[in-house]
Amino acid sequence: MSRALLVVAHGSRREASNDEVRALSELIAQQAGNEYDMVRTAFLELAEPLIPDGIEQCIQEGADEVVVMPYFLSAGRHVAKDIPEEVAPKQAQYPEKKIRIAPYLGAADGIAELMLSMSQKESG
Amino acid sequence: MSRALLVVAHGSRREASNDEVRALSELIAQQAGNEYDMVRTAFLELAEPLIPDGIEQCIQEGADEVVVMPYFLSAGRHVAKDIPEEVAPKQAQYPEKKIRIAPYLGAADGIAELMLSMSQKESG
Repeated sequence: MSRALLVVAHGSRREASNDEVRALSELIAQQAGNEYDMVRTAFLELAEPLIPDGIEQCIQEGADEVVVMPYFLSAGRHVAKDIPEEVAPKQAQYPEKKIRIAPYLGAADGIAELMLSMSQKESG
Repeated sequence: MSRALLVVAHGSRREASNDEVRALSELIAQQAGNEYDMVRTAFLELAEPLIPDGIEQCIQEGADEVVVMPYFLSAGRHVAKDIPEEVAPKQAQYPEKKIRIAPYLGAADGIAELMLSMSQKESG
């Protein structure tokens, strides 16, 4: 039973922003312990791989389960509609795989504590 | 010595997204203990109060120190340029106050752990 976490960000024309997300995925992989066998990155638009290709990549690498984790702060259209629409065709294509969407980051209770902690630090 | 935390988000035409940020500020206030005497919200654009007005509000409420905390995931133009440009005139206007910008949320080490934790939850 191989589990994949697919971190999904919006994607930016500014490649440094996309690289920030890829670096986060690597950091998550380092902390994932036994929870995930792989951590990958995909984007809603403007950067690659796109979400369906990211899911496909996880499956080709042997994942039985893919958890799509939206790296978004707000429950807007992207989280409520666009991401599910990108995921649905892959769920239909691979009914034997467990492909699910986790809550978006902004919904995490721990965000408040993290904001408090970061506010103590000097910028830059 | 009165300290204010000003949570700064991008702002959205979708008022529910702005309210999400305001609710986060309230949650932070509940957890702030003695670190902050007030926690307020401001927006870069599309919602009110705007950043200068948010800083002004904190000062009018008696803040000697205002920590501007960017609720952003990526170190893009908004974080690097737009927010500092909104804050600078208030720093010039109130040289006797300590008005500083904290690192943006996405730079927090704890984000990876929070993503792992949220990925275990079922989407609402």
